[in-house]
Amino acid sequence: MNEPKNYAIGVDLGGTNTVFGIVDAQGNIVAQDSIKTQAYSTAEAFVEAGVACLQPLINQVGGIESIVGMGIGAPNANYYSGAIEIAPNIAWAHDTVVPLAQMFSESLAPCSSPLAPFPVRMTNDANAAAMGEMAYGAARGMKNFIVITLGTGVGSGIVVNGQLLYGHDGFAGELGHVIMVRGKEGRLCGCGRTGCLETYCSATGVARTAREILTKTDRPSLLRNKPIDQIESLDVSIAASQGDEVANEIFQFTGKMLGEACADFTAFSSPEAFIFFGGLCKAGDLIMKPIEESYNQAVMPIFRGKAKFLISGLMNANAAVLGASALAW
Amino acid sequence: MNEPKNYAIGVDLGGTNTVFGIVDAQGNIVAQDSIKTQAYSTAEAFVEAGVACLQPLINQVGGIESIVGMGIGAPNANYYSGAIEIAPNIAWAHDTVVPLAQMFSESLAPCSSPLAPFPVRMTNDANAAAMGEMAYGAARGMKNFIVITLGTGVGSGIVVNGQLLYGHDGFAGELGHVIMVRGKEGRLCGCGRTGCLETYCSATGVARTAREILTKTDRPSLLRNKPIDQIESLDVSIAASQGDEVANEIFQFTGKMLGEACADFTAFSSPEAFIFFGGLCKAGDLIMKPIEESYNQAVMPIFRGKAKFLISGLMNANAAVLGASALAW
Repeated sequence: MNEPKNYAIGVDLGGTNTVFGIVDAQGNIVAQDSIKTQAYSTAEAFVEAGVACLQPLINQVGGIESIVGMGIGAPNANYYSGAIEIAPNIAWAHDTVVPLAQMFSESLAPCSSPLAPFPVRMTNDANAAAMGEMAYGAARGMKNFIVITLGTGVGSGIVVNGQLLYGHDGFAGELGHVIMVRGKEGRLCGCGRTGCLETYCSATGVARTAREILTKTDRPSLLRNKPIDQIESLDVSIAASQGDEVANEIFQFTGKMLGEACADFTAFSSPEAFIFFGGLCKAGDLIMKPIEESYNQAVMPIFRGKAKFLISGLMNANAAVLGASALAW
Repeated sequence: MNEPKNYAIGVDLGGTNTVFGIVDAQGNIVAQDSIKTQAYSTAEAFVEAGVACLQPLINQVGGIESIVGMGIGAPNANYYSGAIEIAPNIAWAHDTVVPLAQMFSESLAPCSSPLAPFPVRMTNDANAAAMGEMAYGAARGMKNFIVITLGTGVGSGIVVNGQLLYGHDGFAGELGHVIMVRGKEGRLCGCGRTGCLETYCSATGVARTAREILTKTDRPSLLRNKPIDQIESLDVSIAASQGDEVANEIFQFTGKMLGEACADFTAFSSPEAFIFFGGLCKAGDLIMKPIEESYNQAVMPIFRGKAKFLISGLMNANAAVLGASALAW
């Protein structure tokens, strides 16, 4: 019972796949496998399949006794309750509260001591990414930083004093939903309100901006080579990198708004760095330069030039699994 | 040398007066005196006068050995460096960095052990207020809350996980300077930018709103009984409490903007409560009801109805002295 616990389990629970990884203390994923998140009609069936998928991986590293615990990054996950709370995109959780951390904890408890619960912690995807950056990525050694994920939506993981910010109810860090355009002109958001940062600066928001410009003007653009309703943010990246003027303007617009939002975030927590993560970052300087320029113009004078603007250090690794595993240590 | 240390010194360093108080562990101010902040041409002379003012108070409670330390709340104070950094309204600090914590620490070190520094901590006024609320006021038992001070400016003290949020550089919590009106229509702010929350929702901002409405319209109002350039927020409170329509509209406008700002703050740190402090709160429900209503309309659905909106529990006590003393324990 006293073997050293040298490994942690990291779980990236996404809308399509759920990836299970065994991670060592240096941040190497030593074993990995996955199941389809939506192939199960109940949470119980999902957990059973997950444990079956994990068991061979656990055996590879010497059994459950050599594992310190498990961390899960999942949409709509509440760190305090360890539950997924009404996740619209997951069939077995879309209209209910699933105490997933407890379910895995009970299923994974070692046979030798079934009453000692196996430690399982869960948080949302962006918070898991922030944990990963702090443990293994661009934020190593930092105590105050903000990870902003630019994907289908805009998510955020906020670290202050070296701790993730969960807030009173476990739902802090919804920076995709600060209001950037007040009043009726704001774009309609999935959260039911208008003008949220996410409606402009997510990958989806960038595609929306592209469609708006292409519809409202007849300016020439490489983006017109594709049916307008199929344009994605990646198309804008490719066009911009080929010098397309409209595409570059879209990144200028997106970066300006992100920079202005970050200026407000600094008035809140004055981070050492903003770390960007997700598909949109693949545009590199095309998006990062406008963000940083806009930020330094918009921010209060005492903060000017202080914050770093970084791209995630985990873009090529399995960041979500690493981040989730960092919850377990 | 082993007497119990039952007292702390709290210092409220304001633009006019600097108040020194000796506070016991229950939050009672047992002795108090003050000096004029601006009567000294150098920081050294100010500290010398401060120590001379303090000495009889210290003697009253049994000497410096019975005091655990000193906390100072001051404008433009940096918690990390213990210095006042370029405070425009203080003659001996308006163009320089004054290491005030260290200066008091050395001057107050007990004769019996002059090499052991006397512990002195300093933070800005709003953070000191937040410490006071947590130790003695409306936030007792809370670990996540935001104090918003509505005075000449709008200040803030943010507590997360039971700790004050200082950020990377010590200047976090400048919530008076998030941008509420983007673009050229925003009011000019003392920070050099436009559209800051403070330009609308400070006591000064409320008076500015009153002058705007009275100038742009000829609507009847009790506020017209005073020369327009002498109208203060207190006049608006008095007129509103007498049923004046224009005055009530000013509070509706101010409360709506504060509520919308708080909705964005919740997306950041999801606090249990917002605690309002300062002259404008004397208007009571006239300002608090519009804030809370606007907040619950504006905030993301998952946060609706969760946050408390409170008036400081320290409005009648010497809150700033108590808050500063809480830094010392």
